[in-house]
Amino acid sequence: MSWINEVGPSSDIILSSRVRLARNLADTPFPTAMDKEEMDTVIQRVRRGILGSHSDLKDDYQFLIIKDLSPVDREILVEKHLASPDLIKNYKSSAILVDKVQVCSIMVNEEDHIRLQCIFPGNRLKDALEYLQKVDDTLDAELPYAFDDGLGYLSCCPTNLGTGMRASIMMHLPALAATGQMKGIISTLPKVGMAVRGLYGEGSEAGGDIFQISNQITLGASEEEIIGSLEAIVGQVLEKERQTRRAMAEHDRVRFEDGIWRAYGTITHAKVMDLNEFMDLLSKVRLGVEMGIIPDIDISSINGLMILGQPAHLKKYEKDYADIKDLDILRAKIISKKLRDRKEGA
Amino acid sequence: MSWINEVGPSSDIILSSRVRLARNLADTPFPTAMDKEEMDTVIQRVRRGILGSHSDLKDDYQFLIIKDLSPVDREILVEKHLASPDLIKNYKSSAILVDKVQVCSIMVNEEDHIRLQCIFPGNRLKDALEYLQKVDDTLDAELPYAFDDGLGYLSCCPTNLGTGMRASIMMHLPALAATGQMKGIISTLPKVGMAVRGLYGEGSEAGGDIFQISNQITLGASEEEIIGSLEAIVGQVLEKERQTRRAMAEHDRVRFEDGIWRAYGTITHAKVMDLNEFMDLLSKVRLGVEMGIIPDIDISSINGLMILGQPAHLKKYEKDYADIKDLDILRAKIISKKLRDRKEGA
Repeated sequence: MSWINEVGPSSDIILSSRVRLARNLADTPFPTAMDKEEMDTVIQRVRRGILGSHSDLKDDYQFLIIKDLSPVDREILVEKHLASPDLIKNYKSSAILVDKVQVCSIMVNEEDHIRLQCIFPGNRLKDALEYLQKVDDTLDAELPYAFDDGLGYLSCCPTNLGTGMRASIMMHLPALAATGQMKGIISTLPKVGMAVRGLYGEGSEAGGDIFQISNQITLGASEEEIIGSLEAIVGQVLEKERQTRRAMAEHDRVRFEDGIWRAYGTITHAKVMDLNEFMDLLSKVRLGVEMGIIPDIDISSINGLMILGQPAHLKKYEKDYADIKDLDILRAKIISKKLRDRKEGA
Repeated sequence: MSWINEVGPSSDIILSSRVRLARNLADTPFPTAMDKEEMDTVIQRVRRGILGSHSDLKDDYQFLIIKDLSPVDREILVEKHLASPDLIKNYKSSAILVDKVQVCSIMVNEEDHIRLQCIFPGNRLKDALEYLQKVDDTLDAELPYAFDDGLGYLSCCPTNLGTGMRASIMMHLPALAATGQMKGIISTLPKVGMAVRGLYGEGSEAGGDIFQISNQITLGASEEEIIGSLEAIVGQVLEKERQTRRAMAEHDRVRFEDGIWRAYGTITHAKVMDLNEFMDLLSKVRLGVEMGIIPDIDISSINGLMILGQPAHLKKYEKDYADIKDLDILRAKIISKKLRDRKEGA
């Protein structure tokens, strides 16, 4: 069910659909103004809200205090898109609840008291919202949400007022990037209330030709309306990417395939590979898989490799490769082996 | 026995040892001053000298009139280093005799009436000279060589006076090239009477890090003395290349192997490959094979591939790949297949 291991609608281009809701407690100061005791109290109240004996969700979630995790395990949550970088930055006072299928997570004491998030593979924003609303209802029944009839859900940062919802679609757009069309899209989308970011959100670069498109406005429209607008925009970008891929392949098929197979030859043979190069090579391999040029590899394997090649995930392997201290060498070793095994095993 | 399919001493670095002798007939004007009838007469006299009933060599040689060969077959002789580019340029009036093992060739009406050449795999200049001297004696017994007691063998170009001998060693020098040391060697060698050229002789570039070192001076020393000097120089270059390879590998083993395996990954997966890139990639693969990094491929296979990737050799395959008109595409297809088959079959 996790977006990393499964596929969904339009998975040739859309990696995941994510919805998150910002919620705060009416009877507690905002996180920026809380003291240590208040922070701990929020954590315990959210925990009981989900894991308490009355909760339908009590058997599905794991509760984690961030400061009890190793630095590597904290980063792994970020690399899987289950936790935000801010939650880890606040590790002294933050906690998280993650469901067993790694689809839904509830962050406590991030920028807001509570951030609920659901991430699905492929193009499934509405499903993600629906799933998340059940979790939200469970908490709402237990906790006094800060809500104003005029403004909607109150939040620490005014950009989250109203629905408190941020919906985002993660897309692989190598053809639009290669032909320079992404620049125009990135500068146009904010004009229609959408933002474009890289793989790891705000401030991250679009390594591997992966872009996240999300709503900027949370106020003045319902959750369903916001998702409808985002889906319409995403549909246009998706179609443009597909058209450009076809045009590139038709223009000079051999050279198009040449670029893809060279990337495959390099990623399966390199002995040192930094993160940027890895993401660029994997982007080309993904394109080759999606277009039927590279056989015997499925897209969900590629998503798995993309996450496996991130620094914290690699560090998890260090015990098996105790002699390798250099992450770029470890990355080359693990990724090339996985890709070759997968292809030979297929 | 051919240098392309066999190995010899120091084959890790030395591809071949070649000796050629320039000879002219005393009773005939030099090629630059001959008419058509005289040219034909020279061809027939050399032919009888080698293939006549009295000759020991008569069963070993094949006689070819250059203008009767297709343009592709002419170029193939050059690519195999059996004929010189000049012999093909003079195709209207030239001929060649090639022995069955493709070690020795006798060019007629090149720059001189006769150019005898012998090419051995590895470091075997003396063997090549000895082999060639027997052929020279056979012809000398039949034909009136232009010879002056003071000057030695007379030749069309004064740079060939005396012995008429040019000895050359073809070396693979990727470490000296990569570290910039080749520039110094190329500028120093002429000062000691040696010249450095590329794979296909005068004016050709040193593609694939392959360099030919040959004597410039043919006068005032015996054949054995000239070869002795060349061998001494070659021995120094050889040792320097070996030291530099070791130093490069020791300095950063992983990055050294990375460069080699990336070249291997590219050459086995590319779909379009021009001659320059092919030679550069094959140079790295050869280095990897020579240093035991790439297993299950032998050096003579690499020499075979180097020649197979040349334009005329590729054109020979056109009938099997009638749909492929682009040599760069054909090269990628044939070379990557051969390399992968060879490795899988090993």
